[in-house]
Amino acid sequence: MDKPYVIGIDVGGTNTVVGLVDKRGQILRQGSLVTSKHAEVEDYLDELAAVIEDLIKNVATKDQIKGIGAGTPNGNYFTGSIEFAPNLRWKGVIPFAQMLEDRVGIPVALTNDANAAAIGEMTYGAARGMKDFIVITLGTGVGSGIVVNGQLVYGSDGFAGELGHVIVRRENGRMCGCGRTGCLEAYTSATGVARTAREYLELRKDVDTQLRNIPIDEITSKDVFDAAVAGDEIAKEIFNYTGDMLGEAFADFVAFSSPEAIILFGGLTKAGELIMNPIKESMERNLLAIYKGKVNLIFSELKESDAAVLGASALGWEVK
Amino acid sequence: MDKPYVIGIDVGGTNTVVGLVDKRGQILRQGSLVTSKHAEVEDYLDELAAVIEDLIKNVATKDQIKGIGAGTPNGNYFTGSIEFAPNLRWKGVIPFAQMLEDRVGIPVALTNDANAAAIGEMTYGAARGMKDFIVITLGTGVGSGIVVNGQLVYGSDGFAGELGHVIVRRENGRMCGCGRTGCLEAYTSATGVARTAREYLELRKDVDTQLRNIPIDEITSKDVFDAAVAGDEIAKEIFNYTGDMLGEAFADFVAFSSPEAIILFGGLTKAGELIMNPIKESMERNLLAIYKGKVNLIFSELKESDAAVLGASALGWEVK
Repeated sequence: MDKPYVIGIDVGGTNTVVGLVDKRGQILRQGSLVTSKHAEVEDYLDELAAVIEDLIKNVATKDQIKGIGAGTPNGNYFTGSIEFAPNLRWKGVIPFAQMLEDRVGIPVALTNDANAAAIGEMTYGAARGMKDFIVITLGTGVGSGIVVNGQLVYGSDGFAGELGHVIVRRENGRMCGCGRTGCLEAYTSATGVARTAREYLELRKDVDTQLRNIPIDEITSKDVFDAAVAGDEIAKEIFNYTGDMLGEAFADFVAFSSPEAIILFGGLTKAGELIMNPIKESMERNLLAIYKGKVNLIFSELKESDAAVLGASALGWEVK
Repeated sequence: MDKPYVIGIDVGGTNTVVGLVDKRGQILRQGSLVTSKHAEVEDYLDELAAVIEDLIKNVATKDQIKGIGAGTPNGNYFTGSIEFAPNLRWKGVIPFAQMLEDRVGIPVALTNDANAAAIGEMTYGAARGMKDFIVITLGTGVGSGIVVNGQLVYGSDGFAGELGHVIVRRENGRMCGCGRTGCLEAYTSATGVARTAREYLELRKDVDTQLRNIPIDEITSKDVFDAAVAGDEIAKEIFNYTGDMLGEAFADFVAFSSPEAIILFGGLTKAGELIMNPIKESMERNLLAIYKGKVNLIFSELKESDAAVLGASALGWEVK
């Protein structure tokens, strides 16, 4: 029987959002629960299963659901486990897919958030019809989902595509949350942008900027964005600095898989041209000659609020 | 009919080597011609066709040849063309595969040398049974062939896998032949090692090393190797410096495709442990925690003299 629906789950450290999705990528029904309130993963999964059952009810029957896809922190596609996720309360290796499948009786696949985003772009978004592209997520951290020959790159262990952790500054690099220094994420995540702002304010006490109206330890990337939109020169410089570094890193990524496009996703993309223009300019300047002018840099076409659920749901079509 | 043979062609700037290969990767017959003597590619291809015909004669009939695979400078698998190869006399875009096929009546596929090496390792060498690995060629230049999900990564344009041209030094980087600065190739190719030797001799006039017995502009990576084997401390330091940089770059490659193995191939691998030990040490030190201890670093198992022809021939099995 043809199964017309999938379920997508976006597991965040704070909240979990669940959606019932059809073949055209429409979210027909949506539900949510608070991830962080459950100290035990068993309790969390009981509530999640109840939310899923409730979502299906009235719209469909269980045997009309092709599969469930989940995007989770540190999700391993090969094992179906969440492995040592620093932002979740459940420690060690959690056989998440199997445990959820046992509860709801529908096959479950999972992967990490950035890979889910890449599958979402390929299925419903900007990458429809593309066989080689990279999705870069610019949020609290920097993540990536890489597609080669029309297939997601999971690598030998399921953990391929950690492009937020390539080293962009080998000397005097910023400390990164991963314990190393100089990672792309330490500079170009939302928190990296806020850090850059604090550095600029410290180093350039002479210049005037509206960012000085905010207590220095409370500056966020949103403040930098607001200031840049208002014409603040320092704020624009911060975006140029961030875009420059992303462009340098992207030029190296292109030398790896020569993608047709690099798709930007996540909170920082709200900055629009302020971030896109410097990335484009820097990437083109840094590309090896044979790649120049070939790589499209585009923003995700998925609506931010739906994207995580849609991306995860797309994995549901592939479940066997 | 089952076709038991393929032909492999290794097109070098100076010489071209051709081999008739069976399913077990045995080179049954071998021939060669001088690439550089032909100003016109048509004349070259006429001679190459004659060498191929001669190779087949007495061993097999033409319809027993499954296909011809060629590894060429700047070879594009998608188009079958050699495109703007700086080391060949024929300029622009040469539809090499079609032109050769027209002459010999056997289907021809081509790719660049490093991709041919990767296919060779997968078919006959150290990567048999692996689905995710990277071959790094350390010769006059630094090249790479990347395999993901059991397939060679060609990218959207056929030119993926130029890992010799990722940037390892963003500030004060060495000039690279590609026109940019700081590329991996500028440091870790055979010529890069010789350059490092010259820098060490200039910068450290105080220390004694047998490399001073050679005119400074004539030092080669072979001289550095010979000195290191003889126990010369500066020569060993040069290999440590080179291996360090390769290890740093490899850690970034792993964050991309999480390969089961990285396979080293080419002239510089003759240095054995002198180069392997510092690479391993540096790669492990630089890897993101989730990848530590997972990636095998190994030397190619293909005999150096046969490897290029074998690698190219393996492409012959895939010709359609």
